[in-house]
Amino acid sequence: MKNLKLKDIASALNISIAAVSKSLKNYPDVSPKTRERVRAYAKSVNFSPNSQAAFLRTRETKLIGVIVSQLTHYFFSTILSTIIEEAEANGYLVIVLPSEESVEIEKKHIATLLQKHVDGIFLTLAKDTYDFEHLNQIVESGTSLILFDNISKVVPCSKVLIDDRQAAFMATEYLIKKGKKRIAHCRGPLIPQLSIDRFIGYKRALEKYHIEYDPELVFVCDKINEEEGYEAAQKIIDMPLEIDALFAASDLTAIGAMHCFQKNGFHVPKDIAIVGFSNWKVSSLTTPLLTTVDQPGDVIGKEVMALFLKEQAQKKAKETIEHQTVTVPTKLIERESS
Amino acid sequence: MKNLKLKDIASALNISIAAVSKSLKNYPDVSPKTRERVRAYAKSVNFSPNSQAAFLRTRETKLIGVIVSQLTHYFFSTILSTIIEEAEANGYLVIVLPSEESVEIEKKHIATLLQKHVDGIFLTLAKDTYDFEHLNQIVESGTSLILFDNISKVVPCSKVLIDDRQAAFMATEYLIKKGKKRIAHCRGPLIPQLSIDRFIGYKRALEKYHIEYDPELVFVCDKINEEEGYEAAQKIIDMPLEIDALFAASDLTAIGAMHCFQKNGFHVPKDIAIVGFSNWKVSSLTTPLLTTVDQPGDVIGKEVMALFLKEQAQKKAKETIEHQTVTVPTKLIERESS
Repeated sequence: MKNLKLKDIASALNISIAAVSKSLKNYPDVSPKTRERVRAYAKSVNFSPNSQAAFLRTRETKLIGVIVSQLTHYFFSTILSTIIEEAEANGYLVIVLPSEESVEIEKKHIATLLQKHVDGIFLTLAKDTYDFEHLNQIVESGTSLILFDNISKVVPCSKVLIDDRQAAFMATEYLIKKGKKRIAHCRGPLIPQLSIDRFIGYKRALEKYHIEYDPELVFVCDKINEEEGYEAAQKIIDMPLEIDALFAASDLTAIGAMHCFQKNGFHVPKDIAIVGFSNWKVSSLTTPLLTTVDQPGDVIGKEVMALFLKEQAQKKAKETIEHQTVTVPTKLIERESS
Repeated sequence: MKNLKLKDIASALNISIAAVSKSLKNYPDVSPKTRERVRAYAKSVNFSPNSQAAFLRTRETKLIGVIVSQLTHYFFSTILSTIIEEAEANGYLVIVLPSEESVEIEKKHIATLLQKHVDGIFLTLAKDTYDFEHLNQIVESGTSLILFDNISKVVPCSKVLIDDRQAAFMATEYLIKKGKKRIAHCRGPLIPQLSIDRFIGYKRALEKYHIEYDPELVFVCDKINEEEGYEAAQKIIDMPLEIDALFAASDLTAIGAMHCFQKNGFHVPKDIAIVGFSNWKVSSLTTPLLTTVDQPGDVIGKEVMALFLKEQAQKKAKETIEHQTVTVPTKLIERESS
């Protein structure tokens, strides 16, 4: 029954195409009997009005494109789940594309989505994106763009983010208040703003409590994965740097470091307290359970969708689009590792 | 520049719409000079031929709908990642929808996707799906249907699965060969075939090695999550059932049980050896690292896409569609918990 057309129904019932069309739209200038015949037949053959033809009239595809760096990351799959759910409740479907942290793939995906005439593109930047021409292209095309998580302040669009600086400050301050004096930091890569902000938050907390900042205690983890956490911990043990706590910019890095410390006979948290960042599912499954900063993916997803719907309403009302930046609050989840 | 039409280009360059269309399609009956002018202009304004209009000619949307139970499950997000990657390489985009293990939501999603005229629907069944009328509807509509993971044998379509019975046999046999004699089993819910098959595999391994099957050692975990694993372990301790090993139908259940045993002073693996199922990311992040059955999501995703492309080619060549069932091999990943 795929792609059945109005004319097929018309010829099956031996009436005009116009009569079929009017019956399906419930127009009054067709007899109730004909209308009922058409609707019953359409139902029996599972006919649905062609959404592509509808697009040619309304200029809306009811499609949204979402680009995240990796689908298998719990934080992103949580955001995606929420966006898909909210989108569906509002009549939109979601095309998902992963950028794998590459700006080239990000550009290619955007071109693909624009060609598909999606109504909106939601995007977290690949970590090596520092030129924003391809994002401005979205804005110029008239498609709504919402940035989330790893955003750029200079792109003229709505944004949803957390206050990374404040969150990292909170995590470090928590360790200081536990009496820790030599706190190492596994930071993310050097470019994206969120990684810089977490590092600044860590540093500011040390400053506030008059603990000297020691650059030797900071490890750059480009992929913030568990292997890099393990390696950083190995260096800490080998030097030895004699730390009493570690704040990592991701849960995976924190867990990698925890494994290394445990394998080398250190007790977590007695010898070394550990705090991660993100509150992935896995942080509640380790031994000991990981203390971490909760970055609520579901709330971020909801805010992204709400901003998009607002922009769509403004477009339809031919009002000026107002860009907004929403900051989602984070909180510290205290578990056993600290 | 959204939704620029051929006629806009024609009027901008002061030539006919036909000349624009022919230039963009590289037809020979238009002068090279005009062709170059049109193509240069189209490029400068970022014009892309309208994919919706293309659909009305080709009857293909180049869209695929994928329905999984939950996006945040590592196994499904791995399958999805691979499908999206392979789809994109072949000119398809993927709409993702989660069924949340509900057959009602599954039905609604299928109706939505059929209305969007997707070229294919890939689906893992919700665990309470036992009536398959809505799946037959996909087949009848002419849209390709591929089932994976939780499949039904009676639906006439291609399928990708693992041999759950054999995989569970392998895991249980491994524990028996380690000298274990009282092996508990956390099984999944009673209905879906994969959960029945894992239970049968466990039972057959016991039979082969003449270990008496004890129904008291089998725990039904409807959601196969960590809480149910924890509860099962608590019952084992409280009775006490004095087991020396546990085979769980999911990694999360295995990890939940492991936590409970550890909290109650049991050593894993010395007192109780544990084997999970799936090889989620988390199984390589626990303490001790979890032994598990690897169910390769990436291979499953690749096979699903390959079957779809084959069916599309058969459709285009107007050949009979041949349905195939592909069984993806599993293997035991030995880590520290056993």
